[in-house]
Amino acid sequence: MKLLVINGPNINFLGIREKEVYGKENFEYLLNLLKEKAQKEAVFINTYQSNCEGDIINRIQEAYFDGTEGIIINPGAYTHYSYAIRDALASIEVPKIEVHISNVHKREEFRHVSVTAPVCTGQIVGLGLQGYILAIDAIIKILNDKQ
Amino acid sequence: MKLLVINGPNINFLGIREKEVYGKENFEYLLNLLKEKAQKEAVFINTYQSNCEGDIINRIQEAYFDGTEGIIINPGAYTHYSYAIRDALASIEVPKIEVHISNVHKREEFRHVSVTAPVCTGQIVGLGLQGYILAIDAIIKILNDKQ
Amino acid sequence: MKLLVINGPNINFLGIREKEVYGKENFEYLLNLLKEKAQKEAVFINTYQSNCEGDIINRIQEAYFDGTEGIIINPGAYTHYSYAIRDALASIEVPKIEVHISNVHKREEFRHVSVTAPVCTGQIVGLGLQGYILAIDAIIKILNDKQ
Amino acid sequence: MKLLVINGPNINFLGIREKEVYGKENFEYLLNLLKEKAQKEAVFINTYQSNCEGDIINRIQEAYFDGTEGIIINPGAYTHYSYAIRDALASIEVPKIEVHISNVHKREEFRHVSVTAPVCTGQIVGLGLQGYILAIDAIIKILNDKQ
Amino acid sequence: MKLLVINGPNINFLGIREKEVYGKENFEYLLNLLKEKAQKEAVFINTYQSNCEGDIINRIQEAYFDGTEGIIINPGAYTHYSYAIRDALASIEVPKIEVHISNVHKREEFRHVSVTAPVCTGQIVGLGLQGYILAIDAIIKILNDKQ
Amino acid sequence: MKLLVINGPNINFLGIREKEVYGKENFEYLLNLLKEKAQKEAVFINTYQSNCEGDIINRIQEAYFDGTEGIIINPGAYTHYSYAIRDALASIEVPKIEVHISNVHKREEFRHVSVTAPVCTGQIVGLGLQGYILAIDAIIKILNDKQ
Amino acid sequence: MKLLVINGPNINFLGIREKEVYGKENFEYLLNLLKEKAQKEAVFINTYQSNCEGDIINRIQEAYFDGTEGIIINPGAYTHYSYAIRDALASIEVPKIEVHISNVHKREEFRHVSVTAPVCTGQIVGLGLQGYILAIDAIIKILNDKQ
Amino acid sequence: MKLLVINGPNINFLGIREKEVYGKENFEYLLNLLKEKAQKEAVFINTYQSNCEGDIINRIQEAYFDGTEGIIINPGAYTHYSYAIRDALASIEVPKIEVHISNVHKREEFRHVSVTAPVCTGQIVGLGLQGYILAIDAIIKILNDKQ
Amino acid sequence: MKLLVINGPNINFLGIREKEVYGKENFEYLLNLLKEKAQKEAVFINTYQSNCEGDIINRIQEAYFDGTEGIIINPGAYTHYSYAIRDALASIEVPKIEVHISNVHKREEFRHVSVTAPVCTGQIVGLGLQGYILAIDAIIKILNDKQ
Amino acid sequence: MKLLVINGPNINFLGIREKEVYGKENFEYLLNLLKEKAQKEAVFINTYQSNCEGDIINRIQEAYFDGTEGIIINPGAYTHYSYAIRDALASIEVPKIEVHISNVHKREEFRHVSVTAPVCTGQIVGLGLQGYILAIDAIIKILNDKQ
Amino acid sequence: MKLLVINGPNINFLGIREKEVYGKENFEYLLNLLKEKAQKEAVFINTYQSNCEGDIINRIQEAYFDGTEGIIINPGAYTHYSYAIRDALASIEVPKIEVHISNVHKREEFRHVSVTAPVCTGQIVGLGLQGYILAIDAIIKILNDKQ
Amino acid sequence: MKLLVINGPNINFLGIREKEVYGKENFEYLLNLLKEKAQKEAVFINTYQSNCEGDIINRIQEAYFDGTEGIIINPGAYTHYSYAIRDALASIEVPKIEVHISNVHKREEFRHVSVTAPVCTGQIVGLGLQGYILAIDAIIKILNDKQ
Repeated sequence: MKLLVINGPNINFLGIREKEVYGKENFEYLLNLLKEKAQKEAVFINTYQSNCEGDIINRIQEAYFDGTEGIIINPGAYTHYSYAIRDALASIEVPKIEVHISNVHKREEFRHVSVTAPVCTGQIVGLGLQGYILAIDAIIKILNDKQ
Repeated sequence: MKLLVINGPNINFLGIREKEVYGKENFEYLLNLLKEKAQKEAVFINTYQSNCEGDIINRIQEAYFDGTEGIIINPGAYTHYSYAIRDALASIEVPKIEVHISNVHKREEFRHVSVTAPVCTGQIVGLGLQGYILAIDAIIKILNDKQ
Repeated sequence: MKLLVINGPNINFLGIREKEVYGKENFEYLLNLLKEKAQKEAVFINTYQSNCEGDIINRIQEAYFDGTEGIIINPGAYTHYSYAIRDALASIEVPKIEVHISNVHKREEFRHVSVTAPVCTGQIVGLGLQGYILAIDAIIKILNDKQ
Repeated sequence: MKLLVINGPNINFLGIREKEVYGKENFEYLLNLLKEKAQKEAVFINTYQSNCEGDIINRIQEAYFDGTEGIIINPGAYTHYSYAIRDALASIEVPKIEVHISNVHKREEFRHVSVTAPVCTGQIVGLGLQGYILAIDAIIKILNDKQ
Repeated sequence: MKLLVINGPNINFLGIREKEVYGKENFEYLLNLLKEKAQKEAVFINTYQSNCEGDIINRIQEAYFDGTEGIIINPGAYTHYSYAIRDALASIEVPKIEVHISNVHKREEFRHVSVTAPVCTGQIVGLGLQGYILAIDAIIKILNDKQ
Repeated sequence: MKLLVINGPNINFLGIREKEVYGKENFEYLLNLLKEKAQKEAVFINTYQSNCEGDIINRIQEAYFDGTEGIIINPGAYTHYSYAIRDALASIEVPKIEVHISNVHKREEFRHVSVTAPVCTGQIVGLGLQGYILAIDAIIKILNDKQ
Repeated sequence: MKLLVINGPNINFLGIREKEVYGKENFEYLLNLLKEKAQKEAVFINTYQSNCEGDIINRIQEAYFDGTEGIIINPGAYTHYSYAIRDALASIEVPKIEVHISNVHKREEFRHVSVTAPVCTGQIVGLGLQGYILAIDAIIKILNDKQ
Repeated sequence: MKLLVINGPNINFLGIREKEVYGKENFEYLLNLLKEKAQKEAVFINTYQSNCEGDIINRIQEAYFDGTEGIIINPGAYTHYSYAIRDALASIEVPKIEVHISNVHKREEFRHVSVTAPVCTGQIVGLGLQGYILAIDAIIKILNDKQ
Repeated sequence: MKLLVINGPNINFLGIREKEVYGKENFEYLLNLLKEKAQKEAVFINTYQSNCEGDIINRIQEAYFDGTEGIIINPGAYTHYSYAIRDALASIEVPKIEVHISNVHKREEFRHVSVTAPVCTGQIVGLGLQGYILAIDAIIKILNDKQ
Repeated sequence: MKLLVINGPNINFLGIREKEVYGKENFEYLLNLLKEKAQKEAVFINTYQSNCEGDIINRIQEAYFDGTEGIIINPGAYTHYSYAIRDALASIEVPKIEVHISNVHKREEFRHVSVTAPVCTGQIVGLGLQGYILAIDAIIKILNDKQ
Repeated sequence: MKLLVINGPNINFLGIREKEVYGKENFEYLLNLLKEKAQKEAVFINTYQSNCEGDIINRIQEAYFDGTEGIIINPGAYTHYSYAIRDALASIEVPKIEVHISNVHKREEFRHVSVTAPVCTGQIVGLGLQGYILAIDAIIKILNDKQ
Repeated sequence: MKLLVINGPNINFLGIREKEVYGKENFEYLLNLLKEKAQKEAVFINTYQSNCEGDIINRIQEAYFDGTEGIIINPGAYTHYSYAIRDALASIEVPKIEVHISNVHKREEFRHVSVTAPVCTGQIVGLGLQGYILAIDAIIKILNDKQ
């Protein structure tokens, strides 16, 4: 099983940026969490982070060709306006789960709208870094159920 | 550990209502799923379903007194307008996770807005009945992390 | 042929409430009108009135099990915001007709929107208590045409 | 008793246009239905169809002079923007019922608004060609009640 | 000096339609008023009334060729949505004054917007039939000032 | 003099819920306050609290029959969307005063709108539990002035 | 016959301010125009100009006591937001005509709305200084018609 | 105890202006009512009325220096747009109560919004001149509770 | 191959009306251009122009019966509000291309919305009279591709 | 070089009003700052403060006559709605810079809109009292560049 | 003649992505189509595709220097929000045509708005890959007409 | 003192692009201006320009590590929608000033909104290239005041 975890803009600043919102653990910590989860579940997890909208689209398109079976994506602020990322996600038919570390519904109004969620399978919001782990659990279950 | 799972209006019609949206498993199936999960995790899970806004508020208030340590709630259509349920949830300080079986962001526009999400800890959307299981996992983790 | 007529909040105050809008006949009068119509058409008509959103949903769900073949509903003010009643109606596949005694389009702006109409077969507005009779005629015709 | 049934733009394309929406019966069929109803109820029914907003207004004004006692109107797409037809209807004080063959509330958002309904007595929506028959029943009743 | 007075839909129903809004004088009365004014000012006044948007456009276009030096127009309800009449007016460069008999700002919200006023020279609102007379005075003055 | 004080959803959680907003006194304290006021003013005050929209409507309708001469209502969150409670209040012609403990205008935007205030006599906002006392004073004065 | 012409903010800068919009004649010129008109019509015309909203309200209130029989007002930019001037105008029952020198409908969107027009008798827009003269003609006619 | 009652534009026209809305008692009557109340409660009440936004701000600022302990303000139409009065009120930290004589929620839509209420302690609406008396009662209580 | 080119209101005023927007060539020139194109491509092209919404609908309906294989339509200002023309176009299943001579996106905001484009195959905007020629090319290609 | 610094409502309450927003320095301090700057740059700086919209307009108009070569204005809350001040500023053609002490974009939504900025040369926001100094620098540079 | 065809995000996924919307031909096919067209018309056509907004801007700016005489651009999803691409296009004065393969007006509401169209010469929508060919024809004609 | 000046998309086209809006000086000129200012003030100024949203975010993040003490940013068109740049700016706690060369409030409506301004210290608009110099002055002052 081959999964891809994409992190969008400013997620690499975890532990630096607004700690009261995103928690005190840094981006390295998240990557290790994912590595451990991969080992525990015996799946293969690629991770990718970029601040650039176009690079994220490129990486999603690459997933079409490299055998990726599920995508977990935290599009960061692009969640709220990147119809281009939305279109890229729509073109890949594997299960896709959108993750937000903070509860976006508690924050500024512009964060209440997700233009990417309608083309994903589901969305996990506000559960911290744990959200990524739950998303992996969910995708593994979806893939297993399909078989 | 004592948790409460509240299901709002029409969730009792799982397996009857719009199966292409909510899946073919019925409400009994969900209750069993929760029972099994409770056994597996060795936690205590109360379940409650009502079509009545006021009864849901009553049950949330009851949770304040009965030692409930975490709430999973699928407010059904009340999600989109029940400020009264929102206020009830806001008055209880345990971890609260909102769950939606279907991906509300893919459906009618009125379903894109949740008036209850801003007072919950987090939200899980579009992952079917599995969403409840993930929510339980999340709450157990939050409660364990607190200790 | 088994029909169900549901009246929502404040319809029981016909003849008491804003007579210049709803007419001077009272709720008893409406129930008798329906009884006579049932006899004339030789159909069976159950009637139900409640001021409680949840009870109305319960009654609609009950109709799923009790062999009801058509529903006439005047959701009163719930027409304008009860997505929960809408979901209940959507889960029952018999012909459903929404009735309003007054011409809602002549009144306050909030009454111009019906959240329940999109899941009904049709809607009759502004024709007084006669609207219920016409709705029964319409459902009888739809059921007869199906056979 | 002298009634007038006005059909607006594209109603003459019944049976041609979007049959899944408007049904497979054609405009001739509707005219015959009305003829039969007139005979059955022993009333006089004039029918008029035009694609032209101005002609519809002219015909409504004519009704002021020719002794028309009730108007049934399906303004077609003009329903949603013709304030000029609205003004014409408002100037004639006989009972007026707006009819829509399809359930406009299930369709595009622009069809949810009727600018003509506020100046009519009532509205019948989504009950197919039967809607015209019910409207005639309703007007006959209103006229009889007046006497 | 050659002027044109255009009256739109339902203005021919003056004295019939909503007298408390438009006054009790009828359309004939208005036409006589204009005739007398023409004699008094020694100008030539053509009048035109139609309920049909297209005919009004045709008449405006005709004015381009027939030597009309000023236009007074009461577009009736077309005021609020006829961008086609607006475009016709915009193509004729003589002075143009929009007249409304009633004070549209006191009435329904849709009457507060004029899509034709931005391409006219000016607008006179709420001064009854006198509004036409004032508009003629204004155009005569504008034409005299130009010479 | 017979008055009725209705408290809507979550008001029974005074002293528990968001104390920085609603104050530290609990619901019992409010009931005692009302009891003392009744004694002082020598009026009869019934109190009613429910979290259920339908029950509140029922209680308002009951007031129509039981000789209630004035209503003080804090509809809680139902203030912002319950057109059904609005309709119930509109059908009872005694003086009615809406009370809010907190200054709703300082809080979330959805709390700035009251759908029930337009059918009440007046509204008292942001003056804490004292708001109820002032409302009783106001109703007594209105009733005395009528005599 | 005693009339009052009120000019609001920046009208005293006629001939200085945006001449391509308001024309090249200055405020003195307007005052003389009004003086000549008064003589010609043998009426008494008071004029008042102020940049201050409060002073304009004071002057309108004064008119209540000083026998003013008609008001012509160009509220300048206050037209678009001064509900206080609106209330003052509403309290005086003489004929009131709002005048705008330029065609406000051709300019910025905020100038398309008049909050004062709904409480005036009528409105004259875009006819330059001539608009004041026409307004005087209109008021004289209204006053004469009353007698 | 030193209180200040500020009345905004057109309140001085009580008894003259729209009596069906504001009642038949005049401004003198209100001032006497306040005088009597001051005597009864043995407090000192300054009153101030102005039609000018700037003067009202000046008076509020003066209150900062003159020992005023509580402000009752009826900002009249300025309620709906004067952010400048709002800022002035926000800079004075004594208890402040906004009063409206009529029930603004029953009237034009622009009167439903108060830009000043969010910086006041509370608001009393629709209770006639009695609203001022209740506001005084409320402020006295707040000040006494503080001690 | 039989095509139909429909021109809506005011297109017959090409070369007269706002030349800086629509170019200096007149309507005759456009008709000749289409005639030449028909000869060059050896197709049959009917042309129709009307200022009347109803006549345009009539002509579209006629095309249903007369063997028209493709429609090019410039609905002029009707583009922005004629849901009746939209419905007519929707009932004809041949390829349909909407053409606008000017770039409507550079002009007034109301011209940015096309209510007819959603029921056409495609749209060509801002390319002058050449837009018609390109539309003919496109339809010929679509028809050829179908065979 | 002769400059004018205008301060609008409540700016005179600097150091009193919301110090966490506007800083702890008082209005005197600002005036001294401006005096020192005038000396340093050897320019002449008039200062004016008023809480009254009309007086601010008067002062701007005066500047037209008194040789003022540049205006720095902080319209306070009038920024957000005073189209009358906007019109006054628009009539004076010297360089004009709008200054806000606090970062209005961080505050309530109504403060995000400036109706006066479109008629100024530029705007300086959120840089405290230093904003005035920078504005003076900017105007001096603009005036020097012109020569 | 030197032209540039720019394709935005996800256009490289033609034939992969949503084939029912974009057709079954892939991106290679489009490039070949353009190559053939270039040969047929004897013009020089550069093609560029990128998923990155910034790279598209870079390429547009490059066109300023490399002698490009016309631009055909399909900005993909950037059409709906990239004001940065809009600004880049606005800075280049050659003819520019926006192309969309699908009829964006038939799809999600966000696709109905183009922020780039107002700075292009024209727009071709919904005509499949043929849209590019027509755009080339149009630009060649525009360039030839200029000479 | 180490400052960073970031210029967003199309700023490198100064002197090429819309000179009547941005002035005739080119980007080189701006860079020299900044170099001279750095020398004059004896501070260190890094400059960075990119058309790519992601690269701008990268550069802002780099500033977190490289000892940058203040940021001046002209985000170009990204100002109006880049919540990703906003988030990057929010994560860096040094003083940040947004600069716009032109007065964005005079231009298209989409330019009136800045999504980045709320996370900056302040904003300077419409003062040409001088705006950068003033921003440097402001940041130097803020940094000096801190010490």
